[in-house]
Amino acid sequence: MKLEKGQKFLLVGDSITDCDRVKPEGEGLFGALGNGYVSYVDGLLQSVYPELGIRVVNKGISGNTVRDLKKRWENDVIAQKPDWLSIMIGINDVWRQYDTPFIKDNHVYIEEYEETLEKLIQETRPTVKGLILMTPYYLEKNEEDAMRQTMDQYGQVVKRIAENYDCQFVNTQAAFDLVLHELYSATLAWDRVHPTPTGHMVITRALLNKIGFDWNK
Amino acid sequence: MKLEKGQKFLLVGDSITDCDRVKPEGEGLFGALGNGYVSYVDGLLQSVYPELGIRVVNKGISGNTVRDLKKRWENDVIAQKPDWLSIMIGINDVWRQYDTPFIKDNHVYIEEYEETLEKLIQETRPTVKGLILMTPYYLEKNEEDAMRQTMDQYGQVVKRIAENYDCQFVNTQAAFDLVLHELYSATLAWDRVHPTPTGHMVITRALLNKIGFDWNK
Amino acid sequence: MKLEKGQKFLLVGDSITDCDRVKPEGEGLFGALGNGYVSYVDGLLQSVYPELGIRVVNKGISGNTVRDLKKRWENDVIAQKPDWLSIMIGINDVWRQYDTPFIKDNHVYIEEYEETLEKLIQETRPTVKGLILMTPYYLEKNEEDAMRQTMDQYGQVVKRIAENYDCQFVNTQAAFDLVLHELYSATLAWDRVHPTPTGHMVITRALLNKIGFDWNK
Amino acid sequence: MKLEKGQKFLLVGDSITDCDRVKPEGEGLFGALGNGYVSYVDGLLQSVYPELGIRVVNKGISGNTVRDLKKRWENDVIAQKPDWLSIMIGINDVWRQYDTPFIKDNHVYIEEYEETLEKLIQETRPTVKGLILMTPYYLEKNEEDAMRQTMDQYGQVVKRIAENYDCQFVNTQAAFDLVLHELYSATLAWDRVHPTPTGHMVITRALLNKIGFDWNK
Amino acid sequence: MKLEKGQKFLLVGDSITDCDRVKPEGEGLFGALGNGYVSYVDGLLQSVYPELGIRVVNKGISGNTVRDLKKRWENDVIAQKPDWLSIMIGINDVWRQYDTPFIKDNHVYIEEYEETLEKLIQETRPTVKGLILMTPYYLEKNEEDAMRQTMDQYGQVVKRIAENYDCQFVNTQAAFDLVLHELYSATLAWDRVHPTPTGHMVITRALLNKIGFDWNK
Amino acid sequence: MKLEKGQKFLLVGDSITDCDRVKPEGEGLFGALGNGYVSYVDGLLQSVYPELGIRVVNKGISGNTVRDLKKRWENDVIAQKPDWLSIMIGINDVWRQYDTPFIKDNHVYIEEYEETLEKLIQETRPTVKGLILMTPYYLEKNEEDAMRQTMDQYGQVVKRIAENYDCQFVNTQAAFDLVLHELYSATLAWDRVHPTPTGHMVITRALLNKIGFDWNK
Amino acid sequence: MKLEKGQKFLLVGDSITDCDRVKPEGEGLFGALGNGYVSYVDGLLQSVYPELGIRVVNKGISGNTVRDLKKRWENDVIAQKPDWLSIMIGINDVWRQYDTPFIKDNHVYIEEYEETLEKLIQETRPTVKGLILMTPYYLEKNEEDAMRQTMDQYGQVVKRIAENYDCQFVNTQAAFDLVLHELYSATLAWDRVHPTPTGHMVITRALLNKIGFDWNK
Amino acid sequence: MKLEKGQKFLLVGDSITDCDRVKPEGEGLFGALGNGYVSYVDGLLQSVYPELGIRVVNKGISGNTVRDLKKRWENDVIAQKPDWLSIMIGINDVWRQYDTPFIKDNHVYIEEYEETLEKLIQETRPTVKGLILMTPYYLEKNEEDAMRQTMDQYGQVVKRIAENYDCQFVNTQAAFDLVLHELYSATLAWDRVHPTPTGHMVITRALLNKIGFDWNK
Repeated sequence: MKLEKGQKFLLVGDSITDCDRVKPEGEGLFGALGNGYVSYVDGLLQSVYPELGIRVVNKGISGNTVRDLKKRWENDVIAQKPDWLSIMIGINDVWRQYDTPFIKDNHVYIEEYEETLEKLIQETRPTVKGLILMTPYYLEKNEEDAMRQTMDQYGQVVKRIAENYDCQFVNTQAAFDLVLHELYSATLAWDRVHPTPTGHMVITRALLNKIGFDWNK
Repeated sequence: MKLEKGQKFLLVGDSITDCDRVKPEGEGLFGALGNGYVSYVDGLLQSVYPELGIRVVNKGISGNTVRDLKKRWENDVIAQKPDWLSIMIGINDVWRQYDTPFIKDNHVYIEEYEETLEKLIQETRPTVKGLILMTPYYLEKNEEDAMRQTMDQYGQVVKRIAENYDCQFVNTQAAFDLVLHELYSATLAWDRVHPTPTGHMVITRALLNKIGFDWNK
Repeated sequence: MKLEKGQKFLLVGDSITDCDRVKPEGEGLFGALGNGYVSYVDGLLQSVYPELGIRVVNKGISGNTVRDLKKRWENDVIAQKPDWLSIMIGINDVWRQYDTPFIKDNHVYIEEYEETLEKLIQETRPTVKGLILMTPYYLEKNEEDAMRQTMDQYGQVVKRIAENYDCQFVNTQAAFDLVLHELYSATLAWDRVHPTPTGHMVITRALLNKIGFDWNK
Repeated sequence: MKLEKGQKFLLVGDSITDCDRVKPEGEGLFGALGNGYVSYVDGLLQSVYPELGIRVVNKGISGNTVRDLKKRWENDVIAQKPDWLSIMIGINDVWRQYDTPFIKDNHVYIEEYEETLEKLIQETRPTVKGLILMTPYYLEKNEEDAMRQTMDQYGQVVKRIAENYDCQFVNTQAAFDLVLHELYSATLAWDRVHPTPTGHMVITRALLNKIGFDWNK
Repeated sequence: MKLEKGQKFLLVGDSITDCDRVKPEGEGLFGALGNGYVSYVDGLLQSVYPELGIRVVNKGISGNTVRDLKKRWENDVIAQKPDWLSIMIGINDVWRQYDTPFIKDNHVYIEEYEETLEKLIQETRPTVKGLILMTPYYLEKNEEDAMRQTMDQYGQVVKRIAENYDCQFVNTQAAFDLVLHELYSATLAWDRVHPTPTGHMVITRALLNKIGFDWNK
Repeated sequence: MKLEKGQKFLLVGDSITDCDRVKPEGEGLFGALGNGYVSYVDGLLQSVYPELGIRVVNKGISGNTVRDLKKRWENDVIAQKPDWLSIMIGINDVWRQYDTPFIKDNHVYIEEYEETLEKLIQETRPTVKGLILMTPYYLEKNEEDAMRQTMDQYGQVVKRIAENYDCQFVNTQAAFDLVLHELYSATLAWDRVHPTPTGHMVITRALLNKIGFDWNK
Repeated sequence: MKLEKGQKFLLVGDSITDCDRVKPEGEGLFGALGNGYVSYVDGLLQSVYPELGIRVVNKGISGNTVRDLKKRWENDVIAQKPDWLSIMIGINDVWRQYDTPFIKDNHVYIEEYEETLEKLIQETRPTVKGLILMTPYYLEKNEEDAMRQTMDQYGQVVKRIAENYDCQFVNTQAAFDLVLHELYSATLAWDRVHPTPTGHMVITRALLNKIGFDWNK
Repeated sequence: MKLEKGQKFLLVGDSITDCDRVKPEGEGLFGALGNGYVSYVDGLLQSVYPELGIRVVNKGISGNTVRDLKKRWENDVIAQKPDWLSIMIGINDVWRQYDTPFIKDNHVYIEEYEETLEKLIQETRPTVKGLILMTPYYLEKNEEDAMRQTMDQYGQVVKRIAENYDCQFVNTQAAFDLVLHELYSATLAWDRVHPTPTGHMVITRALLNKIGFDWNK
């Protein structure tokens, strides 16, 4: 288990991370962590490793792209002084290109995505003990699908950055592909993005497996 | 223009037809026809052919399959004595097989779909002056997609019945495919089913074109 | 078809244009264009000309007079840099003279109306590729009706300005008069102003016909 | 003053009478009489003639036609044993012919109106000490207007019945016409039917004048 | 009739005046005048004297004492430039002494009341054509009641000021006393202050009688 | 202390007793006893005599007269098998005579009040170990006040019945009079009936004093 | 893994199971399984064993005791024909003895608990392939605590029945005790009963471990 | 009785004091004192000592620790110029250490608690006639419980400060312990902190007993 006693674990991202967390704190009583993978990660950390006392903080905000993350990075990430940091961003960067194709101001194309994300990682990596980079994903089995193809390219960017900056790389798309082999995408999400609890468990398991979580402890 | 002065035009179906119509009447003041293609069809009939005085009635109910239609057919269709009747059903018959695959009780497989729909048409055709059969559709460009394939088979059933019982056949899937050639499906509907106004306009145009609506009148 | 690939088409006006659009953007996901003629125009443009990728923006605000338009013109029109612009204003300028006749501060009489509108058009015409001027209207068949007479005079102002500044002129009153020949005004609007979907279709058709929309494409 | 000490005065009608009265009682504490002319009539009776102790009951129901009145007559009028009875009905009988002209089931044409109303009056007149018949009205100055013409015909029916059955006849249309001579109809009601407090005062005064109310007492 | 064509009549006061008027305007469409005596006064002025076109404005605010009036006088009265002004204030000045006797900060004793009111009248009288001063009242028949006694003293202050500054004096308490002779106070108001429509009619009649309103016009 | 270990103490009455208790049970978790004197009585019994385990049940219903009590007596009192029973009824019996004097159907005059209450007590007294009769009250200091006089007569009825049927008699009016000697009635209740917590404490103390509650235990 | 392809797994219980599931179905789209351990169990089964297609059904109802379960057993359990059944009941049976000790009607003492539960198991065991019995629990570390002691006795009953009827026995109390060794009970639940996501994960893991769930698959 | 005629009695604290009081005033009409012990104290003072006219003010705010009190002390206490002051603080200072143990920023440990509270008392004692210090409490009978132990230590701090600064010391924990001897803690509060009316009565009695309240007056 890579996280150590008393560490602060901050997760940042878009609506998949947000899941109706309490704002602005992102931690505390009464479901403050929202109802998605962050609360599952916290629930599993506290129930399996209660002795470690990991402090989990959710700083996801629905609709965010990497451009939005950049604007609030200082306040929502750096100032929080996390020991471990997890980032999952990029779905909205891609989605807006496909659901509102004519409103180009809202599209974050791959060059801006890569440059912005890399800069954030570059600056932040030295300040944290561990950094987890999760790919954006699209719950579409057909790899020839236009939006899936774009999403895969963004996932490749995440992978490269993770390798270059000593991050834990979580391939959420690959984790979902295993399930999509058996279940049609609509079973996991009507809009191919916002998943049911099943989908959040897929993300949770992929993430925890990367940080040495022992399921049989 | 096939509809004649003073005729009653009843449209029945699922949520695509329903669109928050007033219940149980499905006609009257204050947006009683809902906000989908039925209200567009009515708006165009009244604005272009005000002298005909066509009475449009919306009897769609969200979530309905052909199995549900059968249960309320006597009350919601036959007892209403329409002159013209339009039916669009089948999306939920297929969708439940893909979004809740383990709850098989709710699946309406193609044999039941065909048998039920055919029986309703057989009984009803002699009682109306005109009958329009619209295919169910799926806003997925990839024809190899599992749910799209199934939906196409249901569409084939509709086509065969339309031919055998002297109905106007509206191929909504084909109409949408023309648009999907240019726009990614997410532009039309996040869930590939419930469309934006653009999608309702596609249906509206396909339907009106079949009944001799003169756009340049 | 006068609009060209990738152009931005902005429509500004009062409650007839607004129709509960999302504010302040006036474009985007989830019914952002409201439920009136702007969403019909957009739905028809996207469904019939999906290859053009026209970006439609709704900047209507309920209750606005031309005096209000002037205050927000820089921000809501000029700064948006539209390629095409459509304006329908004047109904409230007239209506307040008839529904609250004693509160004269809120009346925009015809001199102010003409001067203000002309100045906005004068400044803006050079900045856009196309400009559509729609008359205000009143759903009252009786041309001797006092408010109808006033509204017609405001419509004349719009016509003159349209001619002088090379604008597309849409005579919504004339379009409605054709329907009022067959239907009593209450069928279109209880208050003779805010129309049912039928009325919005009348406006939509009048507008699209002026910009070369091909209904049979 | 024609009403005597301790009498019960029941007023029945449609939305003009109803005005959000408490149901089913139509009397009691906390604004039970609604906020229209019935509460004004009551307020004036109690404040000017407190020594009479007139009991005012409101049995108006929004949307009612004379066909609806007939159905609830036994329960809402006869069983209440009023000393005085006031009836204003007919606006919806006419309006539905003009706002939803194709839904003919909901139209109450003049023959049915006359026959039904006459029968109710015939039966009820002997059971009450006084009976007031108020015409339906339409806040449209133009007497050539189609709906105004029809409403006037219904008003004529009321007049004839009032004369034949010894009722107080209140010509609300005539009372409104005096005001419409000075004020445009929109000042009194956006939909030419549901009036502002000004309109309810017009009705109140016309009614009270018929029963010998002394304004200068 | 003392009010003349085109004049503005502003009424200011506490909750009896306010009655849920629209804020901040206090005039306009949709019940903007609230549902108390101000709307009755307006309804009677427009229905009986429509040719005068009196503009009625309601500037009552619930809970106000004369101390509160003073703070908003410049903005809510002077800046509005009324031709006629009506003031009814003092109920809360007295009431707080009786319902929350220990919170003395909120009591406006008679010296402060008199001095403040007189100063407002002194300054304002020259700026208006007519000024109406209405007494505060208490719906308690027993003149020995402690709060009634205090209220009567405040009423005396109003009377004196009215006489000294050429104002129309409306003795609302006296008007109510006539009714209280016949009806127990609970019939007019559960709390002896906020009246039913009957009570608002008492105030309306007392006020209109002072300005020469002709009820039989 | 007259109540014994494990006894059930049921209190029945009108809105003073009800105070938003949970219905129909009138006992249980989460404020089930409402927020008036019943919850105070319970709070004091449990906090001072926790060892007795008295089960308190609230069966008050707002607006009730003795006529209403009679209708639900079998279900709400007898079937509950209380050991001790407390009754406070009569305020609405009197109040309706004064706030809606013309609706005589709702008045419960003193003969009906006495007869009904006596019969209920007669039947019930043998079935309970103790029975408390509380007078209705009116928070009006002036004993010449008409409604106060009537209320006092009803209180006399309660007193006589209490004496004849071996009940604990609680004179709530007398308890309130002591406070009204110092505080104006508006301090205790705006409507002279529904009291503040101070008023509920007056009732609580009067009641507990009658059953031997030891405040200094 | 003991569950096999296509099996139906029904979980019944109280609020811990319920967690705002959709009623009455307890399965389907849109969070139908609630937000507690049942949705976690389902999410893990579908994400780790998607190929099995286990159908999970939630039939928990808040506030239920074993007495309530008995009443709805035929409808909610037997008629559903589950392959596997999980039962967690008893918390409310005990809790009511401690939070409302005087309302004895609502207490389900251990004899009734044992008899009722045993009878249900006896009847149902032969009809299902697998049956899981989970103990009720109390998030109180102190084993001398009165309510904890009682809860442990109920847990012993569950254990005995599980052994006698060939059920999987899940000791939720023991699972929680491991966590309570590290975390104070308030961290898991303010009321020591309704847990945070951490507590639901404890239950989920205890349950899944008993049915051979392979966490490292 | 230690409080004297016309004195102001201010009570400050956390949610136990707050109980939904009106903010920011904390006094006035309509339940302004909330529904907890402050309103009971006020109700008893006014009903038993109406002649004293004690002014009770509630300045509790839910969730407050002593750290929060310090920030608002000048505004909410000093500026209010109370004659008597009651303080109950510390529950949240302790609770956060047990319900969110990993969010250490929100914990107020005993050194900070003591230092802060002492400083506030030191400064304030000379400005008031009487000062009441109430201990925080925890409704847990088991004195070995970790959170109970901590709470007892905070209670000891309060006791010491009370002795050193001539304050009335109210041992709420001791008062509750007497009740917990008979009733399980869940009867008083599900979360062992926020009490039912019974618990608020315990606090009320403990407080009033310290200031010489005569229950038998």
